[in-house]
Amino acid sequence: MTNKDVRTPASVQGEQSQEAGQSIGWHKAYIEGSRPDLRVPVRRVHLTNGQSVTLYDTSGPYTDPLAQTDVRRGLAPLRENWITARGDTEEYAGRPVRPEDDGIKHTSSPRGGLRNLDAVFPGRPRQPRRSRDGKAVTQLAYARRGEITPEMEFVALRENVSPEVVREEIAAGRAVLPANVNHPEIEPMIIGKRFLVKVNANIGNSAVTSSIEEEVEKMTWATRWGADTVMDLSTGRNIHTTREWVLRNSPVPIGTVPLYQALEKVDGKAEELTWEIYKDTVIEQAEQGVDYMTVHAGVRLPYVPLTANRKTGIVSRGGSIMAAWCLAHHKESFLYEHFEELCEILAAYDVTYSLGDGLRPGSIADANDEAQFAELRTLGELGRIARRFNVQTMIEGPGHVPMHKIKENIDLQQEICDEAPFYTLGPLTTDIAPAYDHITSGIGAAMIAWWGTAMLCYVTPKEHLGLPNRDDVKTGVITYKIAAHAADLAKGHPGAQAWDDALSDARFEFRWEDQFNLALDPDTARDFHDETLPAEPAKTAHFCSMCGPKFCSMKISQDIRREHGGSREQIEEGMAQKSREFAEAGNRVYLPIAD
Amino acid sequence: MTNKDVRTPASVQGEQSQEAGQSIGWHKAYIEGSRPDLRVPVRRVHLTNGQSVTLYDTSGPYTDPLAQTDVRRGLAPLRENWITARGDTEEYAGRPVRPEDDGIKHTSSPRGGLRNLDAVFPGRPRQPRRSRDGKAVTQLAYARRGEITPEMEFVALRENVSPEVVREEIAAGRAVLPANVNHPEIEPMIIGKRFLVKVNANIGNSAVTSSIEEEVEKMTWATRWGADTVMDLSTGRNIHTTREWVLRNSPVPIGTVPLYQALEKVDGKAEELTWEIYKDTVIEQAEQGVDYMTVHAGVRLPYVPLTANRKTGIVSRGGSIMAAWCLAHHKESFLYEHFEELCEILAAYDVTYSLGDGLRPGSIADANDEAQFAELRTLGELGRIARRFNVQTMIEGPGHVPMHKIKENIDLQQEICDEAPFYTLGPLTTDIAPAYDHITSGIGAAMIAWWGTAMLCYVTPKEHLGLPNRDDVKTGVITYKIAAHAADLAKGHPGAQAWDDALSDARFEFRWEDQFNLALDPDTARDFHDETLPAEPAKTAHFCSMCGPKFCSMKISQDIRREHGGSREQIEEGMAQKSREFAEAGNRVYLPIAD
Repeated sequence: MTNKDVRTPASVQGEQSQEAGQSIGWHKAYIEGSRPDLRVPVRRVHLTNGQSVTLYDTSGPYTDPLAQTDVRRGLAPLRENWITARGDTEEYAGRPVRPEDDGIKHTSSPRGGLRNLDAVFPGRPRQPRRSRDGKAVTQLAYARRGEITPEMEFVALRENVSPEVVREEIAAGRAVLPANVNHPEIEPMIIGKRFLVKVNANIGNSAVTSSIEEEVEKMTWATRWGADTVMDLSTGRNIHTTREWVLRNSPVPIGTVPLYQALEKVDGKAEELTWEIYKDTVIEQAEQGVDYMTVHAGVRLPYVPLTANRKTGIVSRGGSIMAAWCLAHHKESFLYEHFEELCEILAAYDVTYSLGDGLRPGSIADANDEAQFAELRTLGELGRIARRFNVQTMIEGPGHVPMHKIKENIDLQQEICDEAPFYTLGPLTTDIAPAYDHITSGIGAAMIAWWGTAMLCYVTPKEHLGLPNRDDVKTGVITYKIAAHAADLAKGHPGAQAWDDALSDARFEFRWEDQFNLALDPDTARDFHDETLPAEPAKTAHFCSMCGPKFCSMKISQDIRREHGGSREQIEEGMAQKSREFAEAGNRVYLPIAD
Repeated sequence: MTNKDVRTPASVQGEQSQEAGQSIGWHKAYIEGSRPDLRVPVRRVHLTNGQSVTLYDTSGPYTDPLAQTDVRRGLAPLRENWITARGDTEEYAGRPVRPEDDGIKHTSSPRGGLRNLDAVFPGRPRQPRRSRDGKAVTQLAYARRGEITPEMEFVALRENVSPEVVREEIAAGRAVLPANVNHPEIEPMIIGKRFLVKVNANIGNSAVTSSIEEEVEKMTWATRWGADTVMDLSTGRNIHTTREWVLRNSPVPIGTVPLYQALEKVDGKAEELTWEIYKDTVIEQAEQGVDYMTVHAGVRLPYVPLTANRKTGIVSRGGSIMAAWCLAHHKESFLYEHFEELCEILAAYDVTYSLGDGLRPGSIADANDEAQFAELRTLGELGRIARRFNVQTMIEGPGHVPMHKIKENIDLQQEICDEAPFYTLGPLTTDIAPAYDHITSGIGAAMIAWWGTAMLCYVTPKEHLGLPNRDDVKTGVITYKIAAHAADLAKGHPGAQAWDDALSDARFEFRWEDQFNLALDPDTARDFHDETLPAEPAKTAHFCSMCGPKFCSMKISQDIRREHGGSREQIEEGMAQKSREFAEAGNRVYLPIAD
């Protein structure tokens, strides 16, 4: 696998820059921090009026023409010096990689095994790292001790807030900064309600489809379009190896559901799962550098019967695995029973918990039911334990919820879970539109984010129907960036509206190229415009295809402004005489009539 | 132009039925009313489990294989007998059609004139109809008199409410039933907050693009996908003729903005508009059968200066035309000054007012400003006048509004406008996503509809960029049907959730064909599924491509239910022993810890 196999945004962006060869457009820039190795990437849009707009950028080095990227070597380890300088972690031999890590233990079917040796990640040899002598090495531990780490400074510059705000929010458990000590490649980011709303994109193969190349490609493109984190939910072949490629090439935190890989190790038989197999899988993934893990420890034995009369039972994959295990053994969940031990493991690598909502509703009919909220209460309890172990923690939320029941979800979660960051899938506001669930859920996502949800897990058009391809990933990410930004606006997040204002100014002043370059998806905006008016002069025309050249409402507004002096006061002055006459005539033509 | 030129849903549906040749799927059915000519169309979905689901249907006779449709002749005049039986209208010679009606008066450019004579609608010759001897012939007048018309009975059956509720809501001005006496082809529908949320689709050519064929095609397809009304916003050539084709073939009410055509008659020069030209255009359109008209009578001279300091000025086309006229003449709007006369005209044909929000905000920055709300107060005043003349009235709303400012719009409108139906464009919740404004606005639309908006004007992906083609119309309609249905659910509309429940049941029971047939867009849902698992057996498989055949959470839930007896009580009984043991051990493994 080479750069040629994986079409990353880097190569595409490079081509575009060369073709354009002009000073307008956008390019990668950096905000310098307090030390030379602390440079925060931004997307700077250069407008035709000489101004520029700086936007948050998640795309990593791929969009920097000066950066050398090679998917076979992986990204440069940006955080390595920060981690080693702290002196509280150490390298060690690590767990040997076993054949079954890639899912070939219990099967002799052709699905097992790597298709070719080249699939093994060929990058720099590395040893895993973990905390030394029981040292507390999580960002939560540092924040509680009053330390502002380079990671915190990085996100403060990224979010345009003071580092102290970042530290405070992490220390209080109201925000998480997922950053495994074994994932030095990431550009740190923060998830919490006082910060910009974040978006996660899921990738991952399944037993019936897709390759390592596709997953790496999806990851780089998802971040190019704005994904703040990526979850690798692979359940097919080459799980370990795919994850290694993804981690080494990802500029954003990577999340997983270790239970999925553990299940593959027992050939899909939930009842054969054990705490030992699960624990081994968590360590395997923590050593690779997974930044946050979904753990369905809230699916407890007594809650399973609460789902029996549901319309759609248990729809979470992890939730149903744990429910099946509990029922098969008639025992309490091994995740719940070993939760403190799990905390110790996660703390050693600074892996963040994403406490999974295994009993989330899978249909409008099941929203906000007893099973869902029973589990939520347990997640609140587990979150308190996790923070006692200095493990950063966020809480996952639903699912399928009609609009009028959404607010209860975030309000209850904030209350029960001590304001820990809420991380929701949608929610989908109706069940009737398979193939459009990015939209049914984008509606719910925008609302729940406005009310305080910190991160939104995207939904693609393929939800309920199949695995997303690269185009679906794009549609999902763009839809969720809309939801997140709409929420930032509604929350009055400082600076959020500057983006809207810049685009609306460009629209009002017929600066078409600026409109395209400021758009969330410049390429599609440009393509749609050119479908009706393809010629180059149309890019500077003071009209568009909606009304044509003879009449344009924007143009009339500008004429009004020009003719009448430009400011409201001047227009008012110019009209004062007429207004006076009008007032003398009673100031209205019709009197209000109650009928 | 023949049926061969215009690809209506009829022909396509017919083909599918023949191919399928099976008893599952969906077909057009009718609910019989109190008289033989009162048959309410529905879409009946036949499920593989023998059950059926009945859905609201807007697609008209095109999807009825027993109906003969011919775009050259137009649809059968369903309401003709109802209208003539009332005896309160009469046919008359009508206004002669003039060349300038198609926009060829003030120009010698090639854009003027019909491209070929065939474009003139060849259907049945007809004379226009209007009220006789000053009789009150509007549905509002009938409702106030306590009469339940066939139109009211039709919508009562359609909405599954009593005819008396329909009459009451119309009489109170809280609902409108747009039904021009010259548009007997429509299947009556109602717009009001106590009824299902409705969706309008805009079509129409512009000076730079599209043909009569395309517009008729867009109309038939928009209604196939669920548009409840269609607005013809043509501003290019053949305005009169295009509208005739659209009206004669439309099963749903047609709305227009007469100001657009009036402006064409003065060659796009707003200052040359006069009340006489406008009035003549309104009569021309009323005689053709336009069911509702957007009238920007709220754009008053004193409000124009209020827009001077806006980020995006006046973005409504009608609003800016009227503002330009007011300023050019330094006079109060002729629409405002002649409003009572206009009421008399609309009343004679039962044309419904859609009082336009000419000063709606065109950007997030301008939302809920003084100009917008000043106009809204005037619209409330005009609505009271209109109802005094028995003219049915709805009120148009914005526009671009961030989520936290949406509720104020509907609350204020309901208060100021005496609960007249609110009809909003979106609103768009952010400005940053040209090419995705169906989504930015779908979010706002769902929310404002939940809070009481009666009809949503769709936005397509081409908004701000170009004119929508047939695919864009589809995407816009589907997105808005999602928003409308999500709102119906959130409002607790009786029966709304039955659709979601049926689809979720099908999903839980792996009835793939039923899922597709129940989907808002069956074709796309099926295509997406088949992209990953194309084989026919996959349609009955108890798994899908997301997890593959080895593990499926839905299947596990079913196994749980089966093994444990099916009901919650039985599962609980089966688990009682274990639970007791668990309870004796303290009922929890971890105690909550305050940290």
